[in-house]
Amino acid sequence: MNLDEIFMRLALDEAWKYQLLTYPNPAVGAVIVQNGRILAVQAHQKAGTSHAEVIALLYAYEVLSSKRIVFDRFDAHKAHDFLLSLPKNFFSECTIYVTLEPCSHTGKTPSCASLLQKLSPKRVVIGLKDPITGHNNGAKMLKSVTLGVLEDACRDLLEPFLIWQKRAFVLFKLAQTTNGRIGGGYLSSQASLYHVHQLREVCSTLMIGGNTVRIDRPILDCRFTQGRAPNVTIYSKKKKFDETIPLFGVNRRSVTVTEELDWLTEPSFVLVEGGERMLKALKDHIDWMLIYQTPKLSTHELSYNIDMNLAFLHQDKKDADIMIWSRQVGH
Amino acid sequence: MNLDEIFMRLALDEAWKYQLLTYPNPAVGAVIVQNGRILAVQAHQKAGTSHAEVIALLYAYEVLSSKRIVFDRFDAHKAHDFLLSLPKNFFSECTIYVTLEPCSHTGKTPSCASLLQKLSPKRVVIGLKDPITGHNNGAKMLKSVTLGVLEDACRDLLEPFLIWQKRAFVLFKLAQTTNGRIGGGYLSSQASLYHVHQLREVCSTLMIGGNTVRIDRPILDCRFTQGRAPNVTIYSKKKKFDETIPLFGVNRRSVTVTEELDWLTEPSFVLVEGGERMLKALKDHIDWMLIYQTPKLSTHELSYNIDMNLAFLHQDKKDADIMIWSRQVGH
Repeated sequence: MNLDEIFMRLALDEAWKYQLLTYPNPAVGAVIVQNGRILAVQAHQKAGTSHAEVIALLYAYEVLSSKRIVFDRFDAHKAHDFLLSLPKNFFSECTIYVTLEPCSHTGKTPSCASLLQKLSPKRVVIGLKDPITGHNNGAKMLKSVTLGVLEDACRDLLEPFLIWQKRAFVLFKLAQTTNGRIGGGYLSSQASLYHVHQLREVCSTLMIGGNTVRIDRPILDCRFTQGRAPNVTIYSKKKKFDETIPLFGVNRRSVTVTEELDWLTEPSFVLVEGGERMLKALKDHIDWMLIYQTPKLSTHELSYNIDMNLAFLHQDKKDADIMIWSRQVGH
Repeated sequence: MNLDEIFMRLALDEAWKYQLLTYPNPAVGAVIVQNGRILAVQAHQKAGTSHAEVIALLYAYEVLSSKRIVFDRFDAHKAHDFLLSLPKNFFSECTIYVTLEPCSHTGKTPSCASLLQKLSPKRVVIGLKDPITGHNNGAKMLKSVTLGVLEDACRDLLEPFLIWQKRAFVLFKLAQTTNGRIGGGYLSSQASLYHVHQLREVCSTLMIGGNTVRIDRPILDCRFTQGRAPNVTIYSKKKKFDETIPLFGVNRRSVTVTEELDWLTEPSFVLVEGGERMLKALKDHIDWMLIYQTPKLSTHELSYNIDMNLAFLHQDKKDADIMIWSRQVGH
């Protein structure tokens, strides 16, 4: 591994922390280095807020100037204006690593390629060219560019974004012990539970099986993150439910009961929670699996039986747990 | 993460690739950096051969000089002599990262601390002070030293070594699908199978249950690595076995059948292969588990039932698999 790959790896690891949480935007990470010193390791965190490069530049500014930024750094317009107000050459000795080509178009936020053009850093290292026409060619606006560092890993990171441009991206989430048991109450660490609630906050709909609703009587809210509870799609033939089940009593939430799956053709992010039954029902539609694996072996009888081929994409620690991201292959 | 931590992390990751394979030596990794350029990422690979720092210095020499080393770089005496023959100041701009304090004593190989003292690099960054009296205080011989970078992670790396100083270090190895199924023929990638045979080559004994021997009729050799097959300890009350079971026909191997476990007090490295039955029988003695987890969900009925608390130590890819190292806790 050369240094370009090491810094791109850092950018990737940071971006994976916000994978899917940036919906409908892509997950992107950025690292800024000056004379062999790392000034910032940042990522895009939430749609509509400052992009990865911009957040990283603000942190780099703080390190280089020993001053604190007092405005909201997630406000992209303020951030761009501030960065453009700095003395010319402020970042001229910096190398900027970014997993995705800086955007050339102006949307909710100003164009990052045009910002970088004006800031004129020493070099910009880009993992993957932006495959979306109209967003691409940002690299052409920059003077010293290295393209394609850890390109395959950067493409994996971008996959959900490319899918939800066209149709529903379906993530099946599961919490299990290391020997594959899924029963026995809360299995996961606090950090894992918090992450699930972060996903619930941003998904288009949370999908769950009718049986689970009837038996577990869940609330399916975002209490750990204190966020807005997601809309719920109950996958069920029987349309009648006991309306005192907590999930029906949550404010500002719509609940749909359906036995159809044709709505998965709509661009969206569908988070599925369930066990073997839902896994089997949705097998042909699952894009990725996210497994929170706890450091326990258990004698609980509940496991899940299905034949499915995966490819591991990324692993991360969540307190004591490992969070394993994988893609379904060969279906 | 600052750069010292990033380079120490690289040294750690490299050392984990040889974890246990260095038996009875500790796993140690080393990285050499000059002016923000990585010259070498290396590890100690096998007891009796050059230590991590030395292997790394040889690679750094090749990069800096653009010359190839023609002698056996694993021959520690030749390596030390060669490094000492280089012009003074050859490494004076280098920073050397090493997960464990360079050894101050001369054993099968010369002292690394004394070598580094003479080579006089710019700085030596050490993860963990050597806890073994007689090997320690190497750092005191060096002029510019940073101690304790990623110390906890470096201590985890060293744990087997510290255990097998006193008694048997017991590793339970398991190959499973992501939903915890352990049946259905070869589960693992070629790289995982190769790694198992590397472990078999270095272990003091390979322990296996009598039932598995009777049912599976294994050979338990090292054909993938073309190495010497390990001695086998069959844990069994019944002492009679069909002598045509392949494992009994392997050359230069001793096979012991026992129902005792008192020999685990002897300093050694015991590799255990088995399923639920062996896991239960050895529960009180298992130090670490090594799980080769394949990217598959399976309907095979064979899984394993046990209550055990673990702590995840390190994960690594082995081709498509994840290799998960964990410690048993709270027993």
